[in-house]
Amino acid sequence: MRILEERIRKDGIVRAGNVLKVDSFINHQMDIALFEEMAKEWKRLFARKNINKILTIEASGIGIAAIAAREFGVPVVFAKKAKSINLDSDNYVTKIQSFTHGKIYEVIVSKKYLSPEDHVLIIDDFLANGCALMGLLELVERAGATVEGIGVAIEKGFQRGGDMIRAKGIQLESLAIVESMNAEDGSIEFRK
Amino acid sequence: MRILEERIRKDGIVRAGNVLKVDSFINHQMDIALFEEMAKEWKRLFARKNINKILTIEASGIGIAAIAAREFGVPVVFAKKAKSINLDSDNYVTKIQSFTHGKIYEVIVSKKYLSPEDHVLIIDDFLANGCALMGLLELVERAGATVEGIGVAIEKGFQRGGDMIRAKGIQLESLAIVESMNAEDGSIEFRK
Repeated sequence: MRILEERIRKDGIVRAGNVLKVDSFINHQMDIALFEEMAKEWKRLFARKNINKILTIEASGIGIAAIAAREFGVPVVFAKKAKSINLDSDNYVTKIQSFTHGKIYEVIVSKKYLSPEDHVLIIDDFLANGCALMGLLELVERAGATVEGIGVAIEKGFQRGGDMIRAKGIQLESLAIVESMNAEDGSIEFRK
Repeated sequence: MRILEERIRKDGIVRAGNVLKVDSFINHQMDIALFEEMAKEWKRLFARKNINKILTIEASGIGIAAIAAREFGVPVVFAKKAKSINLDSDNYVTKIQSFTHGKIYEVIVSKKYLSPEDHVLIIDDFLANGCALMGLLELVERAGATVEGIGVAIEKGFQRGGDMIRAKGIQLESLAIVESMNAEDGSIEFRK
């Protein structure tokens, strides 16, 4: 998606260790007008799918998912990092390894909000090694719901997550796929 | 706001210890159509204010803030719980006590995304003792930005947070104010 690629080139910051910072428009400050363009693109790409729910994971997926859900006219469920004494005991649980934070954490979705009747579009901001999305896929599978597709803002095409998900036959629509990036000169190449 | 009060009466669950669960439409599953009605109401209530940014805190404020920001035509910044190795060192930091999770945590906003030029509307899902909002107010003050108002979905009117904030002379617009609730019969009374 051209406007997202252009924005990443303009405002993304490449750091050593294949870190791409998009804090200024995606995951700390959020450019809602850009999110609307992304939502419209996903709506076009998933037009043939019958989607009744969007699933994402806290925290940085929530804003994109909310704007996408408005476009699709469906509710959002966000998987929570397990910790709250407010949560019911009746949850689907999975473990996700976070390379960013260097630990494994438990993620839950209440059994009330995912069921075999649900046709789910999963939305997230980043896809790299795929751990977060594999966790969300596991939660959907446990609920007996159907995954209709996955929409990702930025995929790191040089990490294995995208291939893993496409190998499962799932329609994965990454709006920008970074093929390579260079921390020394800040350059970024996107997949054609 | 009548439709929010009616929804809380219909789908909110009152638990012992003054816990009000609104998981099914606000902070686990999110009813985006309801959020749009809330956003329009805040737009009406803050029509005289010149707002250029919405500030919220992860995680459950983000969805409401994103939909509100679309209505106002401004970006969102969400304060982050401090932990990520991806974050810059150049942040405003404050401590917030969470009664829900029984601990104190640090919350940050990058200095790049709050500045003296900003006229900020703070949005959050809940107001009870006011700890989270007082933390956000402190971040705005440190940045030298101006708070134009605070929009809250549900205020627990029997806790002190609302009074504390109104005593500061800040325009606080809570769309539903719970005056009392009863875990035995599940009843909820709203402030007129």
